[in-house]
This record gives sequence, structure tokens and C-alpha cells, in this order.
Amino acid sequence: MIKVGIIGATGYAGAELARILQNHKYAEVISYGSRSYSGDKFSSIYRNFESLTNKECVDEDLLSLSKEVDVIFTATPGGFTSANLNKEILENAKVIDLSGDYRFKDASVYEKWYKTEHKNKELLKEAVYGLCEINREKIKGARLVANPGCYTTCSILTAYPLIKEGVIDGDSLIVDAMSGVSGAGRGAKIPNLFCEVNESAKPYGVADHRHTPEIEEQLSIAAGKDITINFTPHLIPINRGILVTEYANLKTKITMDEIKKIYDKYYGKEKFIRVLQENYPEIRFVKGSNFVDIAFKIDERTNRVILMGALDNLIKGAAGAAVQNMNILFDIDESHGLCMVPCFP
Amino acid sequence: MIKVGIIGATGYAGAELARILQNHKYAEVISYGSRSYSGDKFSSIYRNFESLTNKECVDEDLLSLSKEVDVIFTATPGGFTSANLNKEILENAKVIDLSGDYRFKDASVYEKWYKTEHKNKELLKEAVYGLCEINREKIKGARLVANPGCYTTCSILTAYPLIKEGVIDGDSLIVDAMSGVSGAGRGAKIPNLFCEVNESAKPYGVADHRHTPEIEEQLSIAAGKDITINFTPHLIPINRGILVTEYANLKTKITMDEIKKIYDKYYGKEKFIRVLQENYPEIRFVKGSNFVDIAFKIDERTNRVILMGALDNLIKGAAGAAVQNMNILFDIDESHGLCMVPCFP
Amino acid sequence: MIKVGIIGATGYAGAELARILQNHKYAEVISYGSRSYSGDKFSSIYRNFESLTNKECVDEDLLSLSKEVDVIFTATPGGFTSANLNKEILENAKVIDLSGDYRFKDASVYEKWYKTEHKNKELLKEAVYGLCEINREKIKGARLVANPGCYTTCSILTAYPLIKEGVIDGDSLIVDAMSGVSGAGRGAKIPNLFCEVNESAKPYGVADHRHTPEIEEQLSIAAGKDITINFTPHLIPINRGILVTEYANLKTKITMDEIKKIYDKYYGKEKFIRVLQENYPEIRFVKGSNFVDIAFKIDERTNRVILMGALDNLIKGAAGAAVQNMNILFDIDESHGLCMVPCFP
Amino acid sequence: MIKVGIIGATGYAGAELARILQNHKYAEVISYGSRSYSGDKFSSIYRNFESLTNKECVDEDLLSLSKEVDVIFTATPGGFTSANLNKEILENAKVIDLSGDYRFKDASVYEKWYKTEHKNKELLKEAVYGLCEINREKIKGARLVANPGCYTTCSILTAYPLIKEGVIDGDSLIVDAMSGVSGAGRGAKIPNLFCEVNESAKPYGVADHRHTPEIEEQLSIAAGKDITINFTPHLIPINRGILVTEYANLKTKITMDEIKKIYDKYYGKEKFIRVLQENYPEIRFVKGSNFVDIAFKIDERTNRVILMGALDNLIKGAAGAAVQNMNILFDIDESHGLCMVPCFP
Repeated sequence: MIKVGIIGATGYAGAELARILQNHKYAEVISYGSRSYSGDKFSSIYRNFESLTNKECVDEDLLSLSKEVDVIFTATPGGFTSANLNKEILENAKVIDLSGDYRFKDASVYEKWYKTEHKNKELLKEAVYGLCEINREKIKGARLVANPGCYTTCSILTAYPLIKEGVIDGDSLIVDAMSGVSGAGRGAKIPNLFCEVNESAKPYGVADHRHTPEIEEQLSIAAGKDITINFTPHLIPINRGILVTEYANLKTKITMDEIKKIYDKYYGKEKFIRVLQENYPEIRFVKGSNFVDIAFKIDERTNRVILMGALDNLIKGAAGAAVQNMNILFDIDESHGLCMVPCFP
Repeated sequence: MIKVGIIGATGYAGAELARILQNHKYAEVISYGSRSYSGDKFSSIYRNFESLTNKECVDEDLLSLSKEVDVIFTATPGGFTSANLNKEILENAKVIDLSGDYRFKDASVYEKWYKTEHKNKELLKEAVYGLCEINREKIKGARLVANPGCYTTCSILTAYPLIKEGVIDGDSLIVDAMSGVSGAGRGAKIPNLFCEVNESAKPYGVADHRHTPEIEEQLSIAAGKDITINFTPHLIPINRGILVTEYANLKTKITMDEIKKIYDKYYGKEKFIRVLQENYPEIRFVKGSNFVDIAFKIDERTNRVILMGALDNLIKGAAGAAVQNMNILFDIDESHGLCMVPCFP
Repeated sequence: MIKVGIIGATGYAGAELARILQNHKYAEVISYGSRSYSGDKFSSIYRNFESLTNKECVDEDLLSLSKEVDVIFTATPGGFTSANLNKEILENAKVIDLSGDYRFKDASVYEKWYKTEHKNKELLKEAVYGLCEINREKIKGARLVANPGCYTTCSILTAYPLIKEGVIDGDSLIVDAMSGVSGAGRGAKIPNLFCEVNESAKPYGVADHRHTPEIEEQLSIAAGKDITINFTPHLIPINRGILVTEYANLKTKITMDEIKKIYDKYYGKEKFIRVLQENYPEIRFVKGSNFVDIAFKIDERTNRVILMGALDNLIKGAAGAAVQNMNILFDIDESHGLCMVPCFP
Repeated sequence: MIKVGIIGATGYAGAELARILQNHKYAEVISYGSRSYSGDKFSSIYRNFESLTNKECVDEDLLSLSKEVDVIFTATPGGFTSANLNKEILENAKVIDLSGDYRFKDASVYEKWYKTEHKNKELLKEAVYGLCEINREKIKGARLVANPGCYTTCSILTAYPLIKEGVIDGDSLIVDAMSGVSGAGRGAKIPNLFCEVNESAKPYGVADHRHTPEIEEQLSIAAGKDITINFTPHLIPINRGILVTEYANLKTKITMDEIKKIYDKYYGKEKFIRVLQENYPEIRFVKGSNFVDIAFKIDERTNRVILMGALDNLIKGAAGAAVQNMNILFDIDESHGLCMVPCFP
């Protein structure tokens, strides 16, 4: 049994980790870390866990936690992991970091977009970017996995094969995305109140959202050259889900069938990526699951291809991907505990 | 492996059955029955099943289906099962009927409230009312299980122990309930369009809803005498979930602790019933699970007790209960395949 | 032109007052009072007012404000008005208080249910309960109007004629109510975040909600004797709207037509009360308006009548009623500025 | 008093016309046209109109209606107006057509995108494209006004000044848009059921939506040359509202201030267009009003400008614009009846 500690267990992503792991046969949550609710029963904060666990939340530091568990998930605000992680901890336990702290190879990119100093540049090199479908082999031996962002997972996976194969012009890429409100976290803020979000929609982080450089870095690696993109997130009134629509100029004449073959080349054997042919992705059909649904359409009038992707931001965009990473790290069937059928309606 | 046939697989309850059974180790859906979508892939109608099944919907009759499978779930409109079921079918396969056709012992009650003739009164006697927590022993040997209604499951389980123990006056019982829109089915009707339901709420079936006599019959059995109640359902803009608030006059002076003990007597060992002490039920904490959450409050000013219950109408109120019944019928662990943690947020 | 000051203009009820008064021909908001946002443009807090007003929020005390305006609306948390109002202020300006501070004749009732001392019992006598359809004449000469609560307006108006005429047993009255989230105010609290409210519903304040004694006091006056009731509010995921379902024992044999005549006797000439005959109230058909929709149904099986009412909690349940009171106080057509057609869809 | 006839009064746009005109001082709805509900009271179909009108729906043809009224609004499905309109009707009454039938100068464009023959090409020349802020002068003398589409109004107004001034490259324009469900009409279709739309979002009409050529035609006129764009609509779970995010390559180096000046040049005096400087448009702040909110952001990294616009699809995107056109046609203050403050929350 893999012993699991969660730091930030009372945020939405942390609680989703607990939820997924509750039915994981080979892992068990030993420690529900929470600064705000230390001493409270976890099931009194997330009452869906009533009768399922009696454990109390604890405010434990990474080092002492690392001595009790096999793997630590840090579902914490930006800056926490880099300020607290060190090599000793990594010798004790694997760390899967759900924050943005270890997603960039170059600290200056982090510092520019996150507008704060990176406190532990040394570990950046060691960290592996945990996008399972692309970095599976690298993840296997890792001690520190940087779990990808929600928008980025969706944005990258949707475009990756076409960028990798040089079908589209990377610099022409525009990613227009929308997300449910759980992506904004559980902080008590007026803009996230029901009445402020319901019956509305809004763009935010226009031209300066932190997920932009993360998408760029991974797609640049795929392209073999630097790529600069536009990324615009929008908030829409749903609990869960991300939908991206991407636009790119085609570099060559290509058919729908040929594009499908390229997707199949990369994703044909991927259990959690479904490339649709007759439909477009819809959030309702991935919600509650670890799937990413992807589709594409060529517009011959403008010589662009429109790519679409959808996932559940708390699962494939956070906790599900983190468990998938854990499964890889511990050599368990990668899909174990993650085969939930999307919950529609 | 239990071979399963679903009649009405493309309604919300039928599809939820398919969803739950997809991860059931000992059962497999052999036949997705649908009159409307016969010949279409099930995964083209419920696209959450993309990549999970390739089966096509079939318009099969009960008899021929009964020869291929071990159990048939009928998730069909009122009147279908009674018009089509017969003893030969029951000799071939178990039948779990999710409609209201076999829930009453007395056909005249059915005919009064459903305003239609009952076409197969003979089988009414044989049918067992499939409320697992109350009728578990009777269900074990049954061939025909009448799966309870969604409102009724919630209404009955919430009041049952206090009625059974004579703590409250059955005739004073008032059940005020609200339900999500999936309870109205997947029919293309204007009143169920998004814009008609969203940002609204409404009572319906006031004093004449079909679930009224079903609640009355079961609670009358518990009370050992006939009980007449008021039941008022309301539609609220959520996908899933039922919340009931019940009011009853206390027959004797009683404390909160004493009431808790009564609930414990009946539900203390029930895996899917959680009697709350410090909180009231909320739909978000049962959604996506087979749980019923129950709470109560004595109002000394009026000498009434207020009972509250919540469940997911598609799971504990329909498909989950049906699978629970199947597990009992086939002597599998009753909770198998039903231990989903409620999906919050 | 009536000069208006709003204290608490940046709460939902205060902002709704500003919204309604924006198109009122005979009144103008001179002062947008807000402690939290003092110095900010009102239109930067409520950006629906962009280009409509340039005024800044001010943190002004009641006394100085009373010297500048003709009427003050206090849309403030409980306790504010009673702690700050005095006779000098009332000599300068009319006060319409949207809080609960002046709704009770007996301070001890307030203190019991609000669990705080009432700081200005002297003015309780002078205050007029501002339920226009019932107290119109008393409001006319008032200096201090206690604007009714949202739940209470709906609950009282729905039952009033039948209580007044002695048709129903007041002590048997049970009021089951549901409200949109704007009723909870604009405070940054976790339970009111989108993801906590959406796809859920919950009871709260069971047997101890503050609106209970307010309903009881007004219905007791109507009945000519003390009445004790049950009142249970529920939160549902909509922005605006209240729906009540009330149950009461009939004291005499009566027909639907006779009940209709009683409603007509009291409400036949009321512009903002619509007694429905063929339908039940739905929030979508009153949202955005000053209407209350009411319907009723006799259940002969239980000898109860079920009453239903719906209104927009921010309009007829707060700001609309307050403007209606203002119109009465200043001898303007009572419906002026309040004839918005309900905004469906 | 202007006598108004509405054809298609029981669709969402038609009913919104009735709602707006209810409080219009100089116009009165004489005829509520509806084929489906002929003979029913309008207030029985749209129960928000209870007590506000007693008129019945009629199934009247355009010609006979034109003899009774001064202006006809056709809020009808595509193809109806072109099949039924003729010069005689236009001699009797003004016609404001809310369908797409008369929005194109070139019938072949209509026929290509609407995939149906245009039945009355003759009148295409006479029709004036009723985008008030751009075509105000041409509308004045018109007999037949083609009311713009909802997406198109938002898309065009957001980009118009920058296209007109040659600041952006028209062919680089990408319009990514989302709409509330009322835009899909009131037809009883499964994809528009509450449970299908709620908690989801989806793209549709990718690269072939009918509003594409309408945006292109108007922006091509502004640019003085043919422009080809990408337009992708998405459905999101709200009742009302459209939000567009547009991307275009800047043709020259330009500052935020300079762009603001360009917007001011075209919209500085427009009552219903609000160009924001410190915020981005959000649907909640335009909902229930005739406003369009617009904002922009330069991304120097990609040399693109991101434009954002929001409006209420039923008001500025349909019925409000139609009334604005009517006001212009009849020489009434253009904003009469349209000064509703956006209804937030």
C-alpha cells in the first residue's frame, strides 16, 4: 500500500485527490494537510466524506511528512513548494507538485510571469514535467514531478501532434479557453460568489495569464524551436471543466484524414485521449472522468485548422493526472483508479 | 459474469445504469435497449461512453431479451412493463422494474393515481418493493423487483424509523420535496428546456403526484395502519439530486438524542444511509453517490419534528438502487460497484 | 425631485435600489453610502452602472445624510439602524429601513430571535411595518418604515386573506420556502461561492430563522390571536427569487371558488399581486418585477389547503417594496418606477 | 401611438419585443402573431405577462396584418420573411425583419451559407442593414430593415472602428464567441434541455456558422475590401448574453491610448456602446440592457490586439436593436424604452 500525504487537502484539487484515492486499491491517504483547518475532521470540511474517513486535518511540514509517507502531493498556492522543498525531502518521498513552481526549466520565465522570485532554482533541473502522455518515460524514474496546469494540459494535448509534425505554424497559434469556477479555488472572494459568476461569463488574464509560458515551453520543445502564442482564458458558470478552441495556420495542404492519422500516431494507444471524428468535444461528456476529448476542423477559406479539446479541470487537469503520475512512479497500471465513466448528466 | 439487458437504456436512468455497470466487476451490459435509437451506437447517443462500448442500441422485446440475459432492467415509461411482462419472462430472467408499474399491492391505487388501467394485476402479488434497507430479506428470493421512485426512496427512508416506532403522527406528515431536472427524463419538451428551468423553481403535481400513494403505502405498512399525507414536489435548476423536508407532529415528548438512537437502530449498520448530527443534508454532498443523508430537528414551539433527507435521484433514487437490488438478487456484496464518493464540487 | 440617500448601496439590495431609482422620474440618488468602498466610484463596484453615474461611494453617517436628502434607505446589516437612528434624523428625513431592526412591536421578540440587544426600543412604536398591500394607510404618514423581509413578504401575502377570514387554522401553518443566493448578501463567504451553491440545495435556519417571528407577528395581527408556525428556508442555485409552499388545515368546508373570492376581496385591486387560477407560481414569471404570484389548491384527502407564492427577493422582497413605500410616503403613484415586466427568460 | 404587429411573438425574441414594448410610451402591440399558439392568450404562453395583456395569439398573414399596423416585426425562422414579404406589404407598413433573410446584398451569399434558395431577391436591394450605430442615416428612410444577428452585432461593433481605420489586418481576424441558450430559440429539442446544457459548454457551427458571412460583409464594407474571417460560436449555460473575444494582427505600431481614441471617434457619442478602460466586458454587466460593452488589449509579444465585446443577445442582439430601429424609423428618441439598467445580479 502506497502511503500518501496531501498538502493542501482542503482546496478543491486536494479534495479531489482524496476523492480519487478513496477507491484506489494500492494507495491510501495517511495525512490530510491543511493549514486553515488543522484539527478539524476532513469530513467536516468536505462533507461528501461523511462516514468515509475519520481523519483530522493536520498542519504538517513537508520534511516530517516525507518521513511518514511514500508520496506527497502538494496542492498548494504558487510559491509554497519552491519555498519548502529540498533534497532531503526528495530522498524520503516522491513529490508530485500540483502548483506551477517546478513546471519551467528556466527560472526567469517563472519569475517574469509569476512576478515573484523562485526560491529553489536548483531543483528545477531535476523536476520532470508530468504530462503523462508525452513524458511518460521521463516520469518513471523521477523524484519530483511537476503536475501540469489545467488549461495547459488541455491546450498542449490538443495541439501537440500537429506542432510536433510541423503541420501548423506555431507562432500563429491562438488558444481561446473557458473554465469552470473550481479552477479559481476555494478562497472566499467576492468575484467567485454564486451571484457574481452565475448567468455571466468573462475573459481574464488577457495576454498575461501564467499558463501562457507553460503552453509555449512544451510546444516549443515539440516544435524544436521557440513558439509564441496567444492564450485567453474565460470564466463560465459551471463547476468543472475546461474547453479550448485553438486556431492555427496550416503550413501545408492537408486533409482531415491525414490530420486524423497524425493524431492516431501519437494518441492511438492512449487510454485517456479520445480523438473524435463526427462530433466536437463537450464538457458534459468528459466531466467526472480522466478523459481528454479532442476534435479538429479545417477551414479552407482561411487556410486555418480549428482544434478543440475538453477535460475535467479537477481530474485530468489536476488530481487525475497527479494520480496517473503516481501510478507511473510506483509502477502500477497507469489507469488504475482513473476509469470513471464521465458523469452525464 | 451476470449478463444484463437494459430496456430504455437511452433515458437518463437507463444510461446511469450503464454508467454504474461499466465498472461493475461481476456484471456486464449485453443489450442496450432503445426504441428511439435502435441501430445507433449507444456511445453516439451518450457520448460520455465514447471508446467505452461499441454496442448498438436494439429494439428488443422482453421475451427474447430474457433468453439472453440473467437480469433485465426496465427503465421505461409507466405502463410499459405491465403491458409486456409475463411469467415466462420471469422464468428466464430476473426483472428489476424502474417504473411505477409494480410498486403497489393494490391495482386500484395504481389505477387511481396513474389514471390508466393496470394490464397485469396477477404479477402485483409476486413483485417485491425493492427498497433494500427495508425489504432486503424479501428481495433475496424475488424474481420481480419494483425499484422505488426517486422521491419516494428519499421520503420514506427519511421518515421510516420514526413512523415505525410510533414517534410521529403519520397523518400529520407533510413532505415538501425538490428535485433536479434529470428526474423529468430526456423527452424533448418545452418546460424542460434550459431557459425554462434555469433561474426558476416551481411546484408541480400539487396534491396529485404519483409518488404520494407510494410513500403512503410503505409508511402505512411501517405504521401498521393507513396513513394519508401531503406531498409536494418542486423542480429546481440542478441536474441531479433530491432534497426533502418533512414535517410531523410528535406523539410524545422526545429528545434529539432519543431520536438519534431510533435512527441508529434502523440505519446504524446501513452503508448507504448517513444520519447527520451537526449538519443538514445538502445535495452537493450526496451527488454522484449511492448515499442518503438524513437529519432531524425538534421544534419545541410547535411540537413538530422536521426531518430532512437528500440523495442523488439517478443513483440511490434509481440506477444505484437498482444495482443494489441486483447485487442482492445475485448474492454479491450489496455495495459492490456503488462506493463512489459523492462528487463535490 | 425627491433626494435619496442609500446607506449600504453596495450590497445587493442597496444596488437594486439604485437600479430601480435610476429610471424613477421623481427621485434621484444623491448619495451612495458604503463603508467598504468609500471613495470608489459606485460604477466601479457595480459595473452595470458604467456610464450611468459618476458618483463615488461615501461613508456618511445617518445624521449628516439626513440633512441633505428627503429619504434615506438603510440597506444595512442587522443592528446598524437601531444603533444609529434617532429622532433628530427622523425630523430631517424619512427613513425606510430594509433591515429587521424595526419590524417588531416588541423588542423582546427581536432580542430573542436576533440574539442581540435592541439599541433603540423607543422608536419601535413609531415604526410602521411597510407591507404596502396591508398597511398602506398607516404608511402614508410615517416617518420610519420597516421594510418587510423577503421571505416574510412572500409568506405573509400568500396566507394573509385566508388567515384574516379565519378559513385556516393559523397554528397548523407550515411555510416551506426556497430562495436564490442574492438573499445571502454580497459578503465573501465560502458557503456562497459558486461551486458550493451550484448543483446543490440545502435547508438552513431550521426552526430558528429570524423571519419566523416576523411572519407570526403579522399573521397574528390578521388572525386576532397569537399564531405559532413552522418556517423552513432553503437555498437553491438561482440569483433571484423566492418560492413558498404553505400548508394549513382548513377550518371549514370550502371550495376553490370561495377561496378565490376571498383572495379577490383583498387583492382584487392590487396591481402587484396576481392570484393565478390555472397555474402555480414560478420564479421565472416574477423575476425582475415587483409582482407576487399566488395560487392555492385544496387537498380533500387531508383537509388541507396548499398555498404557493413567488416573488423576486431583491424587488418585491426588498428594493421594489422600499420604492413602493417611498412612493406612498411622498404621495406619488404607488406603482411608479415599478412596472417592469418580469424578465423571462 | 405606433401600432405594432409581431410575427413570431411566442419565440424568445418575439416575446422580448413584447416585453420591451410593454413600457414603450409611443408604441403598442396590436397583434401577437403565432402559428403554434393561435387562439391561446399570449399571457398563457408567456406567463410573465399575466395581468398585463389579455390579447390572444393570432395566425395572421403579413399582408392583412400590414393593413392594421404601422410596423411589423418578423421574429421568424429563416426563410419565412423572404417567402412572404412583398412590395404591397411594404407600402402598408414598415417591416423590421429579425431573421437573416434580408441581411445580405448578394443572394448567392445567403444561399451558400443558409443552404436554401432566396425567394425574394428583388427586395434585397431595398433592405437596409439595421445596425443603428453604423447605418443610422440609411435606416431613417427605410421601409424594410434587416435587423442584425446577435453574434454579428457583437462581433461587428467590437471590431468596426479598428477595421475602418485600417489598424488591424482584416484577414487575420478570428472571432471566438459564446452565447446563452436563449439564442437557440424555444423549440423542443433534446440538445437544449436543461440537463444537456447545464454544467457543459460546446463549440458548434465551426467554420460554417451563418453569422460568418454577415460579419464579413459588414467588416468588408468598413475595410473597403473583402475580408475573410474565422468565427466560432460556443454554447454556455446561461439564459442570456453573448461574449466575443477577437484576435487580429496589428498593421502598425499603436498604443492603447491611440486605440481608445479611435473607439471614441466612432462611439464617443453612442449611448448604448460603452468602451471600457480598466476592465473587460462581462455578461452580468450588460444582461437585461441594450448596452454593448467593449474593451481591448495589445499583446506586444505577438503583435496582436485582443478585442472583447459583450451584449444581451435578446436585447441589443435582437429585440432591443429592433426597437431602436423602430424608434429611428418613426423619428422617436432612439433610446426611448431602451434605458434599462443592466440587471445584476
